[in-house]
Amino acid sequence: MSETAINLARKLSLFTDHWSPKVIAELNDYQVKLVKIQGEFVWHTHAHTDEVFIVLSGEMKILFRDGQVSLAAGDMYVVKTGREHKPVAQKECHVMLIEPRGVVNTGEAGGEKTAAQDVWI
Amino acid sequence: MSETAINLARKLSLFTDHWSPKVIAELNDYQVKLVKIQGEFVWHTHAHTDEVFIVLSGEMKILFRDGQVSLAAGDMYVVKTGREHKPVAQKECHVMLIEPRGVVNTGEAGGEKTAAQDVWI
Repeated sequence: MSETAINLARKLSLFTDHWSPKVIAELNDYQVKLVKIQGEFVWHTHAHTDEVFIVLSGEMKILFRDGQVSLAAGDMYVVKTGREHKPVAQKECHVMLIEPRGVVNTGEAGGEKTAAQDVWI
Repeated sequence: MSETAINLARKLSLFTDHWSPKVIAELNDYQVKLVKIQGEFVWHTHAHTDEVFIVLSGEMKILFRDGQVSLAAGDMYVVKTGREHKPVAQKECHVMLIEPRGVVNTGEAGGEKTAAQDVWI
């Protein structure tokens, strides 16, 4: 029996909204998500987990209170637990996120950019 | 202070050996690894964890006792806990692995292809 892989480009073609991560796979109690971002997100913190960003296309920055990191396609970064951060992207940027199931995109901050969780595509 | 992202291509340029995963990042108690593969690996099982394969370049197959899945660049697949599998690649293929810290590449099988763990690049 031949099984089908999860194709990232195909999954990215299935949605257009920004700042709303979609789950594409689970690894034990972790989730792999895709998100399209553009503009400025809110400052927020994840109090209980690290968060992996892998840029698939485009460019983004993650701002910290004491610095920043720039990411282009093929770059990754791990935001450590409890570190306040703010993702921004001038143009649309496609990102893979890896984090435990149940992580809210706005962390402790909440607000209008808080996305529904556990939305699979 | 400007920080530096982890660049996947640069990390891949730092090693040439096959079937020997290198750690490039940690996410809580999980590790993100890069591995170059070519030829046939051994049949093996990870009894306690799922394992994520993301193909960065080239093509590979993961063989199962009851089927197989083909992956090219931009494809991913999650091998579920306890499922016996055998990765193969006719030509060199570059793969990102995501799994908990401490996972042995040959799982329960052991043998000469067992790689050192926790090798960071």
